Amino acid sequence: MAVQEGNARPLSERAADDIARYIIENGLAPGDKLPTEPALSAMLGVGRGTVREAVKALVSRNVLTVRQGAGTFVAERLGVADDPLGLAFARDKYKLAVDMFQVRMMIEPEVAAMAAGRATGEEITQLRRLCAAVEEAIAEGRNHAAADQDFHRHIAHCSGNGVVETLVPMIHPSIELFVDLTHRGLLKETVETPRELLEAITARDSLRARDAMRLHLMYNKRSMEKFRPRG
Amino acid sequence: MAVQEGNARPLSERAADDIARYIIENGLAPGDKLPTEPALSAMLGVGRGTVREAVKALVSRNVLTVRQGAGTFVAERLGVADDPLGLAFARDKYKLAVDMFQVRMMIEPEVAAMAAGRATGEEITQLRRLCAAVEEAIAEGRNHAAADQDFHRHIAHCSGNGVVETLVPMIHPSIELFVDLTHRGLLKETVETPRELLEAITARDSLRARDAMRLHLMYNKRSMEKFRPRG
Repeated sequence: MAVQEGNARPLSERAADDIARYIIENGLAPGDKLPTEPALSAMLGVGRGTVREAVKALVSRNVLTVRQGAGTFVAERLGVADDPLGLAFARDKYKLAVDMFQVRMMIEPEVAAMAAGRATGEEITQLRRLCAAVEEAIAEGRNHAAADQDFHRHIAHCSGNGVVETLVPMIHPSIELFVDLTHRGLLKETVETPRELLEAITARDSLRARDAMRLHLMYNKRSMEKFRPRG
Repeated sequence: MAVQEGNARPLSERAADDIARYIIENGLAPGDKLPTEPALSAMLGVGRGTVREAVKALVSRNVLTVRQGAGTFVAERLGVADDPLGLAFARDKYKLAVDMFQVRMMIEPEVAAMAAGRATGEEITQLRRLCAAVEEAIAEGRNHAAADQDFHRHIAHCSGNGVVETLVPMIHPSIELFVDLTHRGLLKETVETPRELLEAITARDSLRARDAMRLHLMYNKRSMEKFRPRG
C-alpha cells in the first residue's frame, strides 16, 4: 500500500526545506550556483542519496535547475509554480476563460497605466520590438498567442510591481485556451490595439494606456463570447 | 553527482502525468477516491514502486492526498500550489507587501462589488458569522489575521469567480507579513471596516461594497506604511 507510516516527514523533504532556507538566508539569486552534492551532504548532515532526492523535489517546484555537467543552480522563475492555479484541473474551460478575463479586466488596465508612468527608455525600445512581433505574426496569419503573451508580460515587467509581474503570466493562459478558436475573429481588431498601447506607454500617458488596455481586453472578450458553448 | 543522465523523463513523472490526465478525463472532483495502488499499476502498466513515487509527487503538488488506511483521494485545493508566487524567496518583504497591496487594490474592491451582486442568503449568513469572528478577535486584543483572511476568502467565494477565489488567498499573505507589526495601529480602524463591508453586501449595494473594500484596504496600507524600513 502507498500509505505512509507514521506522521514523520521524509528525510528528503526536510533536506529540501533546509536547501530552500539556505537559498533564502544566503540571498542566492536565479542563476547562482549551489554547493556540490558532497558539500550539501556534509552541510545538511544527510546522505548523498537524500540530497539527490531533495534536489529532485526542488527541481519539480521550480526552485532549482540541474544543468548537465555544470551543476545545480537557482532556477530562473525561482519557486513560481508552473500551473499555480491548478488550471489543468478546471472542468469548465469556458467559465475559466471568462473568469480569467474578468480578473484581467481588473488588473491589466492598471498595470498599463503603471507601465506608462515608470517604463525606462530601454524598456520602451524592447516593448516596440515585441509589439512589432505581434503585428508581424498577425500579418502573416500565424498564431500570435506567444508573441502577445510576451508583449503583455513585458508591460507587466515595466510596471515595476513584482507581484504583477508574476501574476500576469498566470492569468494569461486564457488566451491559449481560446486563441485557436478565435484566431480568425481576432485578426482585425487585435492588429490595432497593441500599437495603441505601445504609443500610449511611449507617450507616458497613463490614462490613455489604461483605456488602450481596456479596449484590447474588451475586443478579446467579445471575440471569445462568440464561441460560448451552448447548453 | 546529482546530474541526470540523458534527457528522458523519469518513469514516475510520466506516471504522475498519466494519473493527472486520468483525474481530468474522468472528471474526478476533490474528495473523490482514486483506484488502489495495484489497480493503478495495472492501468498504467508500471510497477507499484513507480505508482508510489508518482503518487508522492502528486501529493507534493496538492493534486492528491493520502489518508492513512483509507486510500488516495483527489486533494481539496486540487493542484493549487502552496506558495504559487514563490513568496518565500522574495528578498525585500516590505516591497513585496507594498506590491501585494497594490494588486489587492486592483482586485478586491471589484470582488466586493461582485459579491454584493451575487451572494446567496446562506452565504451572507456565513459572512455575518465570519465578520463577528474578526470583531471578536479585535475586541479581545488577539491577532485577527486568520479571521480577517477567512472573511476575505469568503467574500471572494461569494463573487462566483473561480479564479478570484484562488487568487485572493494568494495575495493575502501580505497581512501576515505585517500584521504582527501593525497589530496595534490597525485596531481602531479595522474594527469598523468589516462591518461596513458586511452591511453593503447584505444590502446588495455593489457601489457601497466597492467603496467599503477600498476604505478597508487603504486603512491597512496606511498602517503598513508607518513601518516602512529606513535606508
